[in-house]
Order: sequence, then C-alpha cells, then structure tokens
Amino acid sequence: MRGVNAAYVELKERLGEIQDLQKTRSFLAWDQQVLMPAGGSGVRAEQIATLDRIAHSSFISAEIGRLLGRLEAFEAARPYDSDEASLIRVTRLDWEKARRVPADLRADMSRASSLALPVWAEARQNSDFSLFLPLLRQNLELRRRYVECFDAYDEPYDALLDDYERGTTSAEVRVVFDRLKTEQVPLVASGTREGSRPARDRPFSLEGQQKFELRVLERFGFDRTSWRLDPTVHPFASSLGIDDIRLTTRYHETNLDGLFGSLHECGHGLYEHGVSRTLERTPLARGTSFGLHESQSRLWENLVGRSLPFWRFFYPLLRETFPEALAAVELEDWYSSVNWVQPSPIRVEADEATYNLHVILRFELEQELLAGSVDLAELPELWNARMLEYLGIEPPNDRLGVLQDVHWAGGHIGYFATYALGNVISAQIWERLSAELPDLDDQFAQGEFGELRAWLTERLYRHGRKFTPKETLERVVGGPIDPGPYLRYLGTKLATLA
Amino acid sequence: MRGVNAAYVELKERLGEIQDLQKTRSFLAWDQQVLMPAGGSGVRAEQIATLDRIAHSSFISAEIGRLLGRLEAFEAARPYDSDEASLIRVTRLDWEKARRVPADLRADMSRASSLALPVWAEARQNSDFSLFLPLLRQNLELRRRYVECFDAYDEPYDALLDDYERGTTSAEVRVVFDRLKTEQVPLVASGTREGSRPARDRPFSLEGQQKFELRVLERFGFDRTSWRLDPTVHPFASSLGIDDIRLTTRYHETNLDGLFGSLHECGHGLYEHGVSRTLERTPLARGTSFGLHESQSRLWENLVGRSLPFWRFFYPLLRETFPEALAAVELEDWYSSVNWVQPSPIRVEADEATYNLHVILRFELEQELLAGSVDLAELPELWNARMLEYLGIEPPNDRLGVLQDVHWAGGHIGYFATYALGNVISAQIWERLSAELPDLDDQFAQGEFGELRAWLTERLYRHGRKFTPKETLERVVGGPIDPGPYLRYLGTKLATLA
Repeated sequence: MRGVNAAYVELKERLGEIQDLQKTRSFLAWDQQVLMPAGGSGVRAEQIATLDRIAHSSFISAEIGRLLGRLEAFEAARPYDSDEASLIRVTRLDWEKARRVPADLRADMSRASSLALPVWAEARQNSDFSLFLPLLRQNLELRRRYVECFDAYDEPYDALLDDYERGTTSAEVRVVFDRLKTEQVPLVASGTREGSRPARDRPFSLEGQQKFELRVLERFGFDRTSWRLDPTVHPFASSLGIDDIRLTTRYHETNLDGLFGSLHECGHGLYEHGVSRTLERTPLARGTSFGLHESQSRLWENLVGRSLPFWRFFYPLLRETFPEALAAVELEDWYSSVNWVQPSPIRVEADEATYNLHVILRFELEQELLAGSVDLAELPELWNARMLEYLGIEPPNDRLGVLQDVHWAGGHIGYFATYALGNVISAQIWERLSAELPDLDDQFAQGEFGELRAWLTERLYRHGRKFTPKETLERVVGGPIDPGPYLRYLGTKLATLA
Repeated sequence: MRGVNAAYVELKERLGEIQDLQKTRSFLAWDQQVLMPAGGSGVRAEQIATLDRIAHSSFISAEIGRLLGRLEAFEAARPYDSDEASLIRVTRLDWEKARRVPADLRADMSRASSLALPVWAEARQNSDFSLFLPLLRQNLELRRRYVECFDAYDEPYDALLDDYERGTTSAEVRVVFDRLKTEQVPLVASGTREGSRPARDRPFSLEGQQKFELRVLERFGFDRTSWRLDPTVHPFASSLGIDDIRLTTRYHETNLDGLFGSLHECGHGLYEHGVSRTLERTPLARGTSFGLHESQSRLWENLVGRSLPFWRFFYPLLRETFPEALAAVELEDWYSSVNWVQPSPIRVEADEATYNLHVILRFELEQELLAGSVDLAELPELWNARMLEYLGIEPPNDRLGVLQDVHWAGGHIGYFATYALGNVISAQIWERLSAELPDLDDQFAQGEFGELRAWLTERLYRHGRKFTPKETLERVVGGPIDPGPYLRYLGTKLATLA
C-alpha cells in the first residue's frame, strides 16, 4: 500500500507540473488578447508552442501510463466520487485519448491554426471568403486526420465533439437540436418585435458602465482578492488558479450590451472559482465540459441578468448612473429592451430566442463539412440559405455571415454545439433550483445572490471535472439532457413580453 | 560540416525552448507584482517553481554538453563576434557554471527565498530585525554552500559577484570603490544642501504625471507597438521579447520622483529593445551584465533626465501640465530641485552624489557576512555606524536602515555592487559619446534623443550578451572600468549647483 501511495503522490506531482504549464500557457494567451504590444506576437507564438509541446509530451509519456496502471487497485478501493479515484479515472480517459495523436499531427494542427487566424481576420475585415477558403480546407483536412486517430466513435464527428463534451454523441445532440429547431423557428417567427429596441443609441459613459458593472459583479461574487476584470476586444474568461480568475469585457459607447457580456463571463468565473480547493493544480480543477460551463455563463447572464426581479433591484441604480440617457425609460421598457426578440445576422449579439438557431446552423454545416458532402466554395451560399430558412433573414455579406466566428480559423470544429447545449442545461438546472429555492425572486429584488451561488457551488461547481458531463447533469437535475425546460422558459418569457 | 550545422540548429532550438520558459517565468513574476489578485499567490509560487525546474534541468542536461562539445570546431571556424561563435562561447560558460549546482541546492535556495520574502516584508513593516535574522542566516548559509560548488575563484565572494557581473572580481571592485569612497565622502560633506528641496510637497495629479511621463518616454523611444507601462509598488523593467518591453512605475501624489523611476526603467528597456533581432530567443538576447544594464538606466535617468538641456525642452511642458504647483518655480529652481544633494537613509531615494556610498556600505557588509567576520545579530548597529561614517546620518530605525532592501531576503547577495558600477560606467560611456556627438546638448534642448539612442544601440545594445562585461566596456569606451569620469561629472555638476 505504501508503494501505491507513492505512485499516487508521484502522479499528482506530475499532473501538477503539467497543470502549471497549461495554466501558464493560457495566461500567455490571455495577455496576448488583453495587454501584449503588437510587436510581441512572433515570440509569443513560440512561447505558447513551447509550453504546449512540453505539457503534451510530459502528459502522454509512458511513465504516466505506468503510474495509472499501478494505481488500478488503489482506485478501485476508493469511492467513485473521492478526489483520488476521480483523478485517476479522468486522467486515464484523457491520457488514452491524448496519446493516440502523433506529436507531428498535433504540431501541424497548432501551426495551421496560428497561420489561419490572421488570414481569417483579414478575410473577415474585407468580407472575402475566398481568402480564407484554402486555410479552412487545410484545417478541415487536419481534423479528418485527427479523427482517424480513433476508432471508438460511432461517427467521425463524435471524436471532435468529445473533446468539448466528453461522452456526448452527435446523434444525441441531433435529437435535442431537432426539437429546438421545430419549436424555436415558429416561436421566433411569431415573437419577433417590430421597430427598434428601446434604450439604445444614447450615450453611456465608459466610467459609468465600469462602475455599475462592478456593483453587479460584486453582488454575484466577484472580489478583488481573487478576481480581475480587464478590457479587451473579444471578451472571455480565464484563470490561473481557483483564486486567480481573470474576466475580460468590452464597452460600447451607445448601449449597455457590454454589461451582459460581463455577466456571462462572470458565470464562467464563478464555476472555476467554485471548484473545491482540494482539486487545485489537478486536471480536475475546472468545469467538466464546455456545455456545462456555458450553462453557467448563460444562467448568470440570462436567467438572472435578464430577469425582472434582478432589474427591480438594479434598475434604480442604473438610472442613477445614467440619469440623462434613461430619463424617459421606465423599468418595464428597460426589461423589454434587454429581452428584445429580433433576428439579426450575428450570433454573439443574438437574443435568447434566436441564439440556438445560429448554433444549430453551424452544427449542421460542420457535420456536412467533415463528411465532405458540401463543396467548400459554396459554403457562403449555403450559410445564407439556412439563415433565411431558420431566422428569416439573409446576411448582407460574408463578414456578417460565414466569416463572423473565429472558431473554424482556430481549428475548433465540434465546439459550437456546446453553446446551445449550455442554454438547454441552464434551464434544466434553473427548474430544479427554483423548486428548491422558492424565494429567489425576492432575494434578487433585494440584490441578494448568495443562496443561488451556494446552491450551484454545492451541487455543481465544487466537483470540477470529477464527473463526466452526463454524470454531472444526472447528479444536478436527476436526469439526462432535455430541451423541455428551456422551451417552457422561452415560451413563458415571450408571452409576458408580448 | 552538414552534421555540425545540424548540431548548431539543435542547440539553438533547445536554447530557444529554455529561453521561452525563462521569459514566461519572468512574466509570471511581472504579473505577480503588477496585476495578480492576492489569492493567486500560492499557485503562482508553484507555477514559477515548475518553470524554473524544467528550464534548469533542460539546460544542465548532458545533451547540451554533448552539443557544445561537437560544436568546438564549428565555433573556432567562425569570427569571435559572430552570432554563432558568441552563442556557443557564452552558453558554454553558462552551462559549466550551472551544472555544478546540485538540483537540490538550487531548490533549497529558491524555497528559502520564497519563504524569506514575506517574513522580510513583515520585519520591515514592524522595523523588527530579529524576525528576519534566522532567515537571513539561512540564506547566507545556502550561499556559502553555493560558493562551495566552485573552485575557480580567487575569493568566495567572487562566485556570487560573477553571477551578476561575469568575470569581475571583488578585488577589482574594491579598487574602484575605495577611490569612490575617498572622493565622494568629502564631496558629499561639502556639497550637502541645507533646508528642504524646492518644488516638493505640492499636489501633482496622477493623470498629469502619466501624461507628462509618456511624452518624455515617447521621445526616448517608447512606443505602443513594442512597450507597455503599468503601475506597481516597486518599479522594475521586464521583457517577454525584444519587441515586448514591460516597464512599471509608481506615482507619488506630492512630488515628481516617480518620473525619474520611469526614466530609469526606460533605460533598462532601451537596452533590451536594442538587442539585435538575430539574437531573439537566445540567451544572448539581453544586457550583458547587471552593471552594464544599470549604466543604461542611470544614463537615461541622470545623465539625460537630470541635465539642464533636457529640462530646457521639457520644463515648459511640465509647467503647462502643472500650472498651479509650479507657478513660482523657475527652470533653475527646478533643475536645482532634481539635483538636490542631501544625505538620506534610503538608497532608492538617494541623489547622485550619495548613491554610491549606500552601495559601498552594502558591498562591504556582504563580504564580511559571507566571511563570517560579523555577528549577524549586530548587523543593524554596524549598518548605522557605517551610515554615520559615510553619509553623516543615522537611520532612525531598521525599517529605514538594514531592512530597507529586498535583495538579501530574495537571496541576491553579490548584486548591490553592480548599482555603483553602473554609475561609474554610465559616465565613462557618456564621456566617450559626448566626444563623438558634440551637439547632444542642443539636441536635448530640442527634445531630440534619436542620435544618442542610435549611438548606444550601435555600440552597446545590439550586441546583447555576446561579449563579457569587460569586453563590452573595452569595445565601447576603449578601456577598463575607471571611476575618473564619474567623479569628474559629479564634481562639475555640484560646482554648477553650488
């Protein structure tokens, strides 16, 4: 037993070092987007590649495999949900997937992404898909080679999806998405508002936005001992440790959309910050999947941040902050404004009713792309035709169409689905917690969010990556993924806004 | 020849990876002091230790030694000042020193420093030397063990000094410092100003300081494409690459001393930014020694930034920025104020005439400490007695005395001397460049610093660490270190100010 304990200590130490490298690597990426002077980009790409390479080769080493082998009895003797058994179990799955990918292919994928990103940015700027086409073709080809490394999946796309949502298949996602599409397309058609959204296109000072935003975030759980908030171009959340959470945000000068971006990123941060300290410096010290992570960003952004009780407390403060811009805007107008349903070409600006349709469109196209059933050169036309079918609008150009997202340039094929899964899961969790915490509306109206946060921490956050996404969802809501709650939530909300 | 070329390519690739790790490691330290929320400190110490460990073990590996061995003929066939021969030569010296230090000792030293730093901070806060004493004893003991790893030095202290100023001996430094002491002690005694410094203790807005500071830095060479300036508690300069230079600064609300700190750090940044791009990602991509580096921070801070021609251009702008605070302060008053000679207990706030004496005091004490000829418990009394002897003042407490500097807590014994060497070298370089660029005063009075920067880049900066400090100095000024120019500069300046 002593020998096995030593093996566990050694495994944990090795994984701790790899975690240090990965956290540092993502911090370099954080800096790249938040602070780095443009001149630093060449060396930065090398620094990131070096940390990637060392972390990957340390992880797929035979020594990790040997330690995992020696720890089989140790794992079996411990409860399934113990930190020890979970770390061994999850690491084994990670290791078995990672070591199937040749180092060369990994390097090719990383290099192709680095090269594609600036070309995509230029193509998007000029709305010129042909510029991006050869690099998209190459990224796709590399993903096909990646998929070929595995043989355990029902269909090729599953190998990609599994990187973001372990154990979830394309077939399962299709069932969920077909239901969403069937119900959301008519819902959007009937719920679309005419005219322009109230409380837009007026001056909101950046200082006022920063001040107000911090007041909200601090009530959500943000504190300066463990968090930072910095401005950037494309907001995201990152962390160096459980007590070093980095949110980024942006501000528009004529509307308050940036606020919702910050609430969204804060949700990601709360998940990372809520992981049990006993899991620090292990691969379990983060959210269990992209879908579960997104369920939390969407929950804090939408279920909380676009609710009427939330604004009962915060709207008077908002109006105090911007007395001129909001002089003629009553609480009800404001509530209507932040829940305005209107199809628009850009996913990240979409309202709650149309958002999933943007995602479904991408999920379907990705599968067709991977299968090779689509002529890549015709992708822009296909994109626009689907937009018309699902949302009733056509993007005026490729910049506002097929070129809008960074994901395909960065090689992230299989990622999009998790955005809509996150919406679905957020409502499932909300139904469950509302039943257990009946006073939430009153608490929100008093500016209190502690009980909500404590519930989510206890049921979800503290476990980090101990359980698979499916196990996690089962533990939190007592069942599998189900679009019912989200569709009910959406139907009710749209009815009250009509 | 083909095989040898491959060995060079491999050496460069390995050193590039090590450089990536070291740059990333120093970036983690930058963040620690500039941005990191306090909660991140525990994990951060692990992240830094991991990067240190991997970089060190990669560097001292037998494989690096084998490559260096295989490259002997390759090196001999190339000019001494070529990038290739220099990289091999300098790496061989680095490698031979580094591999003599057992990994355990290195880890002990790193751990002891991490533990000592917060204790020193507390001891300094409470002016309680006894709190710091056991940790100082331990750091000193570890340095003695470090010194024992080597046998090639004339005296033990040389092994430490060599880490900061390669190839320079304690005996050589003593000759320089004895001369400085002999001449500076009476110079200070006669040049000390009575009364309080003009243009202090009035409100200087932080916004105004930031704005003015950037106007100066931009004329020195700072540009947003390759530089950043961020606020911190203890200013320093750092870099992630030749085109990613990070300066930090601080602002006082009642004086403009922070400005000189920024000019100082900018001098360090200009050296790092001026290194030839062909040396990027190699261990040659930085200043050749701490002394040479300090010569550049002192040159831009003092020889330029405290000169009358500099202020002829900038004082009108400064007065425009702070019209109320400086209403009654004429250019001559201001010039006198920023060159005010008056002994004070704190080194980092010392004027040009007293600064070296602070350093000499530390240099002498360090040697006595290492030799064990001083009872550590009596260090505060010894410190105060020397202050009285050299500067004519006694610190009122240990916070303003023996506890003021972080260096001994961080294990940096052997470092202080380079500050005074930097002053000396700055004046040697200044004499040389003034002879070659006779119009400098006129250029400064026009706000032009390009010719000065170009001269320094061509003669010094671009070579990075290719040559030893002695070789470098010989190439720039045509001779060895010589306190004459600094003493002449100081004498002349004090005479004009009297």
